[in-house]
Amino acid sequence: MGLFSKDIKTMNDLFVHMLRDIYYAEQAITQSLPDLVNIATDPQLKRQLKDHLGETENHVARLEEVFRLYGARPKAIDCPAIDGIIEEAVDLTSEVKDKQVLDAAIIAAAQAVEHYEITRYGTLIAWAKQLARDDCASILQRTLAEEKAEDERLTAMAESKINRKAA
Amino acid sequence: MGLFSKDIKTMNDLFVHMLRDIYYAEQAITQSLPDLVNIATDPQLKRQLKDHLGETENHVARLEEVFRLYGARPKAIDCPAIDGIIEEAVDLTSEVKDKQVLDAAIIAAAQAVEHYEITRYGTLIAWAKQLARDDCASILQRTLAEEKAEDERLTAMAESKINRKAA
Repeated sequence: MGLFSKDIKTMNDLFVHMLRDIYYAEQAITQSLPDLVNIATDPQLKRQLKDHLGETENHVARLEEVFRLYGARPKAIDCPAIDGIIEEAVDLTSEVKDKQVLDAAIIAAAQAVEHYEITRYGTLIAWAKQLARDDCASILQRTLAEEKAEDERLTAMAESKINRKAA
Repeated sequence: MGLFSKDIKTMNDLFVHMLRDIYYAEQAITQSLPDLVNIATDPQLKRQLKDHLGETENHVARLEEVFRLYGARPKAIDCPAIDGIIEEAVDLTSEVKDKQVLDAAIIAAAQAVEHYEITRYGTLIAWAKQLARDDCASILQRTLAEEKAEDERLTAMAESKINRKAA
């Protein structure tokens, strides 16, 4: 789709456009999450991020299943939002000297990624239902549940341990 | 703060860094939200976004109050995340031809902004509490409550009307 070419004419087009946006985002996350795993110090945080990397690979596969069901070509389109969120994660974590403060910053960076995914999957599920594609909505719902659970686990870890060690 | 200069040494530094990040983001939102207000068609959506613009101006003022209480200089630092989210909102809405489909896209774009703010304020509140600055946390909490309420209003509007008109 070209910029300003107004290629989105229907809700169907909009749904496919957003699927391609999050397809790009999930792939970008699988490429950048290993960097956060590598620099994390707390073993529980390291393991949690690594486990979520495995989930993220499943999310890519699930999106391919939704493309197939919907009859749309699985294609990633540029997603400046996730690029910016990842760029900010790299900038932020690069600026932190202390290892324990860095763990707190890593959690903040990972939660910004989760929240982007939560909003996009929430939107996609609402649109799929409106388009009477409950089959697609239910697959997307499984991923949304995992993103929300990851966000909650990170909050719990930050509040119970990581922030205290950092302060 | 310079890239790779590792200027963040303590949780205090991290807290101030993130305050400056969201201070930039809130100002960027006050500048870009009027564009979404202008292109929205549904009168209720237009009014809702306009009301939230007023809230956003309050959020900037509240951040200045937190800087003052915390004894830090109110300074905005580049926030590639919000720049990317806004760039994507402009790209997406520029590509939509149909007015009713555009309203659905505007809600998705606005909710991506809300979720970025929700994650950042959630993090800042947890850090403020850890730093024993409940005075700052309670101010930030008021803004977080408004961001969550805005996100919920947009979801309700999308599901009750906008998506149906667009489909």
